[in-house]
Amino acid sequence: MSFNSFGRVFRFTTWGESHGPALGVVIDGCPPGIALGEADIQPFLDRRRPGQSRFTTQRREPDQIRILSGVFEGRTTGTPISLMIENVDQRSKDYGEVAQAYRPGHADYAYDVKYGFRDYRGGGRSSARETAARVAAGAVARLVIPEVTLTAWVEAIGGDTIDATRFDPAEIDRNPFFCPDPVAAARWEARIDEARKAGSSLGAVVACEATGVPGGWGAPLYAKLDAELAAALMSINAVKGVEIGDGFAAASLSGEANADAMRPGAAGQPDFLSNHAGGIAGGISTGQPIRVRAAFKPTSSILTPVETITRAGDATEIVTRGRHDPCVGIRGTPVVEAMVALVLADQKLLHRAQCG
Amino acid sequence: MSFNSFGRVFRFTTWGESHGPALGVVIDGCPPGIALGEADIQPFLDRRRPGQSRFTTQRREPDQIRILSGVFEGRTTGTPISLMIENVDQRSKDYGEVAQAYRPGHADYAYDVKYGFRDYRGGGRSSARETAARVAAGAVARLVIPEVTLTAWVEAIGGDTIDATRFDPAEIDRNPFFCPDPVAAARWEARIDEARKAGSSLGAVVACEATGVPGGWGAPLYAKLDAELAAALMSINAVKGVEIGDGFAAASLSGEANADAMRPGAAGQPDFLSNHAGGIAGGISTGQPIRVRAAFKPTSSILTPVETITRAGDATEIVTRGRHDPCVGIRGTPVVEAMVALVLADQKLLHRAQCG
Amino acid sequence: MSFNSFGRVFRFTTWGESHGPALGVVIDGCPPGIALGEADIQPFLDRRRPGQSRFTTQRREPDQIRILSGVFEGRTTGTPISLMIENVDQRSKDYGEVAQAYRPGHADYAYDVKYGFRDYRGGGRSSARETAARVAAGAVARLVIPEVTLTAWVEAIGGDTIDATRFDPAEIDRNPFFCPDPVAAARWEARIDEARKAGSSLGAVVACEATGVPGGWGAPLYAKLDAELAAALMSINAVKGVEIGDGFAAASLSGEANADAMRPGAAGQPDFLSNHAGGIAGGISTGQPIRVRAAFKPTSSILTPVETITRAGDATEIVTRGRHDPCVGIRGTPVVEAMVALVLADQKLLHRAQCG
Amino acid sequence: MSFNSFGRVFRFTTWGESHGPALGVVIDGCPPGIALGEADIQPFLDRRRPGQSRFTTQRREPDQIRILSGVFEGRTTGTPISLMIENVDQRSKDYGEVAQAYRPGHADYAYDVKYGFRDYRGGGRSSARETAARVAAGAVARLVIPEVTLTAWVEAIGGDTIDATRFDPAEIDRNPFFCPDPVAAARWEARIDEARKAGSSLGAVVACEATGVPGGWGAPLYAKLDAELAAALMSINAVKGVEIGDGFAAASLSGEANADAMRPGAAGQPDFLSNHAGGIAGGISTGQPIRVRAAFKPTSSILTPVETITRAGDATEIVTRGRHDPCVGIRGTPVVEAMVALVLADQKLLHRAQCG
Repeated sequence: MSFNSFGRVFRFTTWGESHGPALGVVIDGCPPGIALGEADIQPFLDRRRPGQSRFTTQRREPDQIRILSGVFEGRTTGTPISLMIENVDQRSKDYGEVAQAYRPGHADYAYDVKYGFRDYRGGGRSSARETAARVAAGAVARLVIPEVTLTAWVEAIGGDTIDATRFDPAEIDRNPFFCPDPVAAARWEARIDEARKAGSSLGAVVACEATGVPGGWGAPLYAKLDAELAAALMSINAVKGVEIGDGFAAASLSGEANADAMRPGAAGQPDFLSNHAGGIAGGISTGQPIRVRAAFKPTSSILTPVETITRAGDATEIVTRGRHDPCVGIRGTPVVEAMVALVLADQKLLHRAQCG
Repeated sequence: MSFNSFGRVFRFTTWGESHGPALGVVIDGCPPGIALGEADIQPFLDRRRPGQSRFTTQRREPDQIRILSGVFEGRTTGTPISLMIENVDQRSKDYGEVAQAYRPGHADYAYDVKYGFRDYRGGGRSSARETAARVAAGAVARLVIPEVTLTAWVEAIGGDTIDATRFDPAEIDRNPFFCPDPVAAARWEARIDEARKAGSSLGAVVACEATGVPGGWGAPLYAKLDAELAAALMSINAVKGVEIGDGFAAASLSGEANADAMRPGAAGQPDFLSNHAGGIAGGISTGQPIRVRAAFKPTSSILTPVETITRAGDATEIVTRGRHDPCVGIRGTPVVEAMVALVLADQKLLHRAQCG
Repeated sequence: MSFNSFGRVFRFTTWGESHGPALGVVIDGCPPGIALGEADIQPFLDRRRPGQSRFTTQRREPDQIRILSGVFEGRTTGTPISLMIENVDQRSKDYGEVAQAYRPGHADYAYDVKYGFRDYRGGGRSSARETAARVAAGAVARLVIPEVTLTAWVEAIGGDTIDATRFDPAEIDRNPFFCPDPVAAARWEARIDEARKAGSSLGAVVACEATGVPGGWGAPLYAKLDAELAAALMSINAVKGVEIGDGFAAASLSGEANADAMRPGAAGQPDFLSNHAGGIAGGISTGQPIRVRAAFKPTSSILTPVETITRAGDATEIVTRGRHDPCVGIRGTPVVEAMVALVLADQKLLHRAQCG
Repeated sequence: MSFNSFGRVFRFTTWGESHGPALGVVIDGCPPGIALGEADIQPFLDRRRPGQSRFTTQRREPDQIRILSGVFEGRTTGTPISLMIENVDQRSKDYGEVAQAYRPGHADYAYDVKYGFRDYRGGGRSSARETAARVAAGAVARLVIPEVTLTAWVEAIGGDTIDATRFDPAEIDRNPFFCPDPVAAARWEARIDEARKAGSSLGAVVACEATGVPGGWGAPLYAKLDAELAAALMSINAVKGVEIGDGFAAASLSGEANADAMRPGAAGQPDFLSNHAGGIAGGISTGQPIRVRAAFKPTSSILTPVETITRAGDATEIVTRGRHDPCVGIRGTPVVEAMVALVLADQKLLHRAQCG
């Protein structure tokens, strides 16, 4: 059943907990002969790394990647690529309270009811630290799809949305919020500072666009490209909603308004007059940009006391001290990008399998 | 890769096209000894059946289910259950126009670019008729999870949303829209009639609630119950967005507002004071009702002419004549319900596998 | 888990029981655009069909194939291909004895202990009739690998082995035993007649060779081509042993004797001086002929009384009346060929996925 | 497709090469709450470890296991268990000859034709070192099936078979050959010394018995317990044949001789009067001991020169210097045992999933 694997042909398996010695990922099915070194992966981890501004957790992790297998003389061999990141900054602390009481919004109660107990150190397996492994795998996936350009950004924080007319991709890496709209970035700075000081947290919407995807990737129905992307994004911690193209907005449109009309284009390809479908029709890419959005709930770890119960079933209150992202969606941005890359690499190979 | 299968332990595979002789589903991994007859499945197909009101396609399909294997003396044997539905009303028509030009919003162009050609009769594999097979499989899944009660309804049509304070489950089957709010149902009737007469179509939002799901189903990360449900719903034709619990609205909440606080409850179970998480935390059910929503785009088959191109790449316009649902989301309601049942049956067995 | 599916990319699922209304198979992942009609499948079913000589079961089944989906205008569409065969000759009989007592060698007891009961009519799901579905699927698989030529034959019956020096492929279809050695065929005729008249049965060894397989199909370790073939053959009813190349005989060889030395050959390909490895090294095809063998145990249905117990646990004896193959391995020959075709088609597509 | 994973519910993925920094395995789907420490795994690795006698490779590897995730406070958490073994003794040597010419019997040519190049250091991924990861995973699997007792042994070396009447399980760990017959062990010592000194190598047959397996594990047809075991064993390097129960010998038996007759036994279980079926009927365990055998070809690395070609296609001869097992089947014994444990753990959980 592979609870911790994703992908069909280009398939990866992650392992590791927040406070264990290390975390990692094994990638299976990667094509051979691709130039790959640690330097191809590290920049993506650096982008996701905590402790880079006051707007993310203050945990200091170098997130140094090590390639343990699958690469020989600088090229992938076609055998499993094992990547490992050591956990360095597992600050010693007293987990007594978290061990005894369930943090609302967290996985605490659910893990306990499922497994009979849980690793309560920093969220254990359900910590956002796991996403470092995805980002590492995503860096490899990108090399499988050089024809594709991926851009992810934060579209809204706490319900405050960017102005699409000010969208500038060059802005995304100029602020600590992956925000393509400098005006919104300024507002968000104040907003997150406020939340942070109040011991609160904020949700976010992250968007991602993939250009250069040729028509034909994906497959009808249970392997619809929409469904693969939805599963990929929804598998990220804290994501509770996914949209492809216009998503929920499409449900308010008429058929005419939603139709992506076509005109003869260059090189025998159609020109589409709009992209409500987010580049996917019938579950298959059309050659238009793929567009997805993911809703991140606010970080569940907050300093505001919340009513809860203990393992013994007694009423109590809990405050989640420690080093947490005030808005986990921000650092979710490179993770969304990585997951889209992983889905597309897999779909490219799958399409090649069936259709040559 | 199983483009046409879904599920891990309770797994089904659908087959068939709109205008082929039949369509069907094979269910593998069903527990043995469950009482099952055609009468357990037929009512669910009847609910989804076309031609029951002027608000759905006028194609007349009896959708008579046949059990071809896997049942002996009225009980499931544990071996594959093959279910078949014959296509009866494949009205003879001229597909010339559809064969030559791509219908915008449809899978036409994407299929052609992927496979090199396509079955253009009534949408072929991407026809909503495929969902009959899911509904049949879902009827079997329900028998695997007798502890669960499923309720699905249409929450919005064309952007017109029900009034939650008027929600009455008894209303759902009293109108042709699966609408739990009789006032909204009246509005929708006018709205859809108008769209139908204008040769237009409307999108819809379908919601589903599952009560009785015990805590512990699902698993962290790549098999998050949220991710399984997202893939299941997104695999339905025309669905372009999925939410679990508050979904995108959660992205606008603060951490305090989003936390589902707990109080000691009856029988050692917690009482949750809210359900923003839609009954799933860390990817695992908490015992609260599971809540999901799916956005259906408007039916792509419309009588309004849309600009498009021919297979040869020439500019043209197309009008999709024929018998179509003016709002495909309406009949999507039993389909959503079926997919949720299928996911939950699978997760119940998976949980039993790992945790006994 | 898909108990009834096989394959990774070219994947099929069979369904149906000996005495149900029909049996069938759904093939998923078939490349599009392949010319396919019922006439491409029927000859293979005819070869496996019962009742063609006194050496096989006297059940009369036309085994007429119907294509229910996945083919449009004579070509595969890339969507699921559903194939169905109706059961015609389910002779009415009294199953009282078989229902109450377990037939040794059969699946009776094992099914009952697993599922709590079983379909006792003619073996239910574990009947050799299921193999008709495999043969149908195999006929489609062959079209995916036109570069490969498959030849299967019976190598031994009841321990009486063919003389390799008399091997003549043209003989295989000239006798009812798929025997490439006419002298052995004559001996077997007497041998099987004797066993049949004595109410006994015989085991057999079936061999298969695939020529034209290019180097590079398969993959290391858990997807070794050897392992895929072993699983495929061992999944056939009554098979209890599998060999690749020299198989068990290799265990008696020295390293020098077992090494398949290479010489420069034509067109840049090596000439191998022997083929102990059966065309597979490190789990990957070498370009030499693939060679496999499968051991079929004797048919368990015999007229000789065998000690057994009833469902209630009481001692009794049982005689399996009815229409049975005196040597199930004979009709296993087209089944082995089909399974090899199915593995190779899958591996061809998988190789294309990873290595382009 | 997961070329490097095995299992359905209890699923593991191995990674690593002979001369990389480390090798390892990730186990997914392990039940929670099982006491697990490195001391539960190390003894099994020690049994397989090289360099313990002159009859195995002289490479000195401590094979020290590290648990990197999935265990908290000494118990499995239900999340992925990552196990790692560092490679220590990667003796520096000149691989020039092996890099340029293909070693017959090895995977060299096949890898090159598939991937376009290969990691030629010590066999790369196809080195027997990979089996250390399986043995580690197998040690965890054993804890999932405490009801099962596993015993594996070498049954024949170079065609010299043990005397079954002298079978003594206590002998297995008293000689360096896992030989249950002390007389055969003495013969083998001379035999292997001779082969070693001659620069030759020998094949072997390894047998394994699992007692305590209850009836009901496994499933019909494509998931026959026989097929799962066959795939598991055939996935081991150098294995070219697999038998379940009587295997190929069953093909020479009559139906009466092969029938495992039943008598009423204790506790409502049948007493079987024989076990030709190797404890599996219809693909499902019967409660009798599971019996399997695997044929290991002779080690391909030999000092005897063998004709071969270079990558450039020129004729040459090759001698495989280095530290090699003269009979790789010997150290295959703990590997076979591990693979049987892994299959049975998986099947136990699968049976629980479907049948409760």
